[in-house]
Amino acid sequence: MTAQRLVVIGGDAAGMSAASRARRLRKPGELEITAFERGRYSSYSACGIPYWAGGEVDGPGALIARTPEEHRERGIDLRTRTEVTELDVDGGRVLARDLETGTERWHGYDHLVIATGARPVRPSLPGIDARGVHGVQTLDDGQALIDGLERAPGRRAVIVGAGYIGVEMAEALVRRGYAVTVVERAAQPMSTLDPDMGALVRDAMCGMGIEVVTGAAVIEVRTGAGGEVTAVVTDAAEYPADVVVLGLGVRPETALARAAGLPVGESGGLLTDLAMRVRGHGNIWAGGDCVEVLDLVSGRTRHIALGTHANKHGQVIGSNVGGGYATFPGVVGTAVSKVCDLEIGRTGLLEEQATAAGLRFVSATTESTSRAGYYPGARPMTVKMLAERRTGRLLGVQIVGGEGAAKRVDVAAVALTARMTVEQLTALDLGYAPPFSPVWDPVLMAARRAAAAVAADAGG
Amino acid sequence: MTAQRLVVIGGDAAGMSAASRARRLRKPGELEITAFERGRYSSYSACGIPYWAGGEVDGPGALIARTPEEHRERGIDLRTRTEVTELDVDGGRVLARDLETGTERWHGYDHLVIATGARPVRPSLPGIDARGVHGVQTLDDGQALIDGLERAPGRRAVIVGAGYIGVEMAEALVRRGYAVTVVERAAQPMSTLDPDMGALVRDAMCGMGIEVVTGAAVIEVRTGAGGEVTAVVTDAAEYPADVVVLGLGVRPETALARAAGLPVGESGGLLTDLAMRVRGHGNIWAGGDCVEVLDLVSGRTRHIALGTHANKHGQVIGSNVGGGYATFPGVVGTAVSKVCDLEIGRTGLLEEQATAAGLRFVSATTESTSRAGYYPGARPMTVKMLAERRTGRLLGVQIVGGEGAAKRVDVAAVALTARMTVEQLTALDLGYAPPFSPVWDPVLMAARRAAAAVAADAGG
Repeated sequence: MTAQRLVVIGGDAAGMSAASRARRLRKPGELEITAFERGRYSSYSACGIPYWAGGEVDGPGALIARTPEEHRERGIDLRTRTEVTELDVDGGRVLARDLETGTERWHGYDHLVIATGARPVRPSLPGIDARGVHGVQTLDDGQALIDGLERAPGRRAVIVGAGYIGVEMAEALVRRGYAVTVVERAAQPMSTLDPDMGALVRDAMCGMGIEVVTGAAVIEVRTGAGGEVTAVVTDAAEYPADVVVLGLGVRPETALARAAGLPVGESGGLLTDLAMRVRGHGNIWAGGDCVEVLDLVSGRTRHIALGTHANKHGQVIGSNVGGGYATFPGVVGTAVSKVCDLEIGRTGLLEEQATAAGLRFVSATTESTSRAGYYPGARPMTVKMLAERRTGRLLGVQIVGGEGAAKRVDVAAVALTARMTVEQLTALDLGYAPPFSPVWDPVLMAARRAAAAVAADAGG
Repeated sequence: MTAQRLVVIGGDAAGMSAASRARRLRKPGELEITAFERGRYSSYSACGIPYWAGGEVDGPGALIARTPEEHRERGIDLRTRTEVTELDVDGGRVLARDLETGTERWHGYDHLVIATGARPVRPSLPGIDARGVHGVQTLDDGQALIDGLERAPGRRAVIVGAGYIGVEMAEALVRRGYAVTVVERAAQPMSTLDPDMGALVRDAMCGMGIEVVTGAAVIEVRTGAGGEVTAVVTDAAEYPADVVVLGLGVRPETALARAAGLPVGESGGLLTDLAMRVRGHGNIWAGGDCVEVLDLVSGRTRHIALGTHANKHGQVIGSNVGGGYATFPGVVGTAVSKVCDLEIGRTGLLEEQATAAGLRFVSATTESTSRAGYYPGARPMTVKMLAERRTGRLLGVQIVGGEGAAKRVDVAAVALTARMTVEQLTALDLGYAPPFSPVWDPVLMAARRAAAAVAADAGG
């Protein structure tokens, strides 16, 4: 028997998890595994870059879960600095270019895994390529940022975009002693929250001394005589800057796949079946930041770039390619973050998303504390909960508050998966002891309020 | 229309929650509410006593959610220092004795709520009533303990029993500078955990300088010339003590109800229907530490004394008495605790409980961290998961570890309620960011291991 050939495009979480899982299930004589990675690193935590930038984490080494050498020792032929430039689906082969030597070669595959990730949004504005303007998508980006901060320490930083990366980078630069301004086009920071919850984040950030400018579109990056950034200009004002960080989100990196005719959704992310096989293609798999995933609450596919999903996709793909069986049933939209000592969690649908999905809902917001009110360290938290009208089904939860706030959304994530009603939530047997929770956990308190809102709505 | 008469026996969480909820739903002209409480306090957090004893919380005021006066202002005729000594079910009346004056009077009811709580186990040993031997069930107990500690500060404390109260009191006395010995009859501390997980707690406690003596039965409390405690004697050794705290658990306080012929379960706790009505009695309700609750995992009723359940029972009873509708569907056995910086969480069934319920299971234990391994403050945690053979249904989770460990059982509590399989758990969309979790949350990692064990077991 000749060995089957597995080719993986992309050496980060999804691709290398798939390769590693398949390798554990199939010996080299049964399955040859070749992986191509454009960069120099493999299996790293891009989510860790803000903490590296903030000096809390040593990088880049600590952020690398497994080096290319370690993968090779485990029987995976991982080729870094090698970019796949063409995909020939009919021929079952990819064209790979060695970025050091420039040589190109076709590689045939029996199974292909596309794990090309995402690329950061980088608007084409005057001055956007000035020295001192940084993205934070790859370890090389992170290294460039840190080198820049250390080579020419400045005083003023402007962050463009107030999403997860934006607020995390705001914290990092505050830690480095910068005066930080965050510029966001929307009315509130954190567009992954409803505006009323985003306003809480804004207030807290202002309390930390971070300047938050919202409703402002960046139109230009101003540069000095040496080509270095000097200011960020919006349609309303100008903000001096020694360093600029772009946190405008990411888009699926699927140019290669789209050129080969593979199916993509509205976001440009690849569409797969539940086993993570590209729709309509029996031997092409895709996972990680380059795919759309099924949102179990709205019933639609969405693009969500998150390392934890990428790892799960990789496990599923590797199991299936390795002769096992696994599926990725979908997500409920859980995300957690923090900016200094403010925690932010969300799962399920925002009001706007629920409306777009054709759902009608009631919402309830409650104030509570992370521990019994009398216990030292109890921190305030605000919980907002959405429930479907008539059925009372839980649709989403957003939490903003002190330590202990963010991960509380996990309870709601499980409840969303199980399609529970908010009335059912009120009876959940959640852990209680004074150091951990008030006698009514904040999530249960919100559920009681939401259940009352459902009942009042049904009565009206 | 004459007002209906609601009588409540017991002025703590369950009783006063029921009274308060009913009062919100029904005006005084529709429902007269009279509550009898043996002690001086109402609506207090007994769970907070160890933290008061440890000096972390000011007591007793901070532990009182609502004083008798506040209840009276809200239209509840709460009579403290008044004990109900007889229940006449056929006559629909209770005999209440004023403990100050000794006068007794019958009070008729249309609805009766029994919320008599639990009493601590106090073995009849020589010397058990010595000065310096304390229980920690009521605020008066707490005050007596603290007065004793402050009046005659000592050096050596012995805690009898290594359950929740025992380990929490061990921490409190360590904080007060005592050399602490915990004496436990079982082979490991925390019999609410499997012995292998209890051993982790033991190791951690020893690392904190707490002496943990297991497999030892106390046979005597030795006293000095002045009637004060001097030592605790077990079947094997003698431990000098200036103060002794009893943490041997509690039993339902149902003598009154049993004398009236109301139905109780194996533990002596009252049996109710899902609306918290005493079985077979249309107008008698019971909740809190004096009832048995349905364990949704084992299908049996159990006695679990926990303030959060008592509050839920009170809400349900008050809604129903007040003309609304609510049920308490049951528990899954969630509990969280800590001793110094070690957190302990559990939900569902232990191995022994699963076997007793007729279930066969596989188990898996994993080591992980509370945050991304590279993120500052990441703490180790051990997760043990039980899954039913063949079906793979989650049966229980136990977690022992650093900060962030205990409340992670909440995810499993929801999954148990939804009767999820461990395979379904592996795909849960739990919050991920480096300050909050490794890329595979510890619960997901345990689920993967458990799912593999289920599969291996089915194959074998």
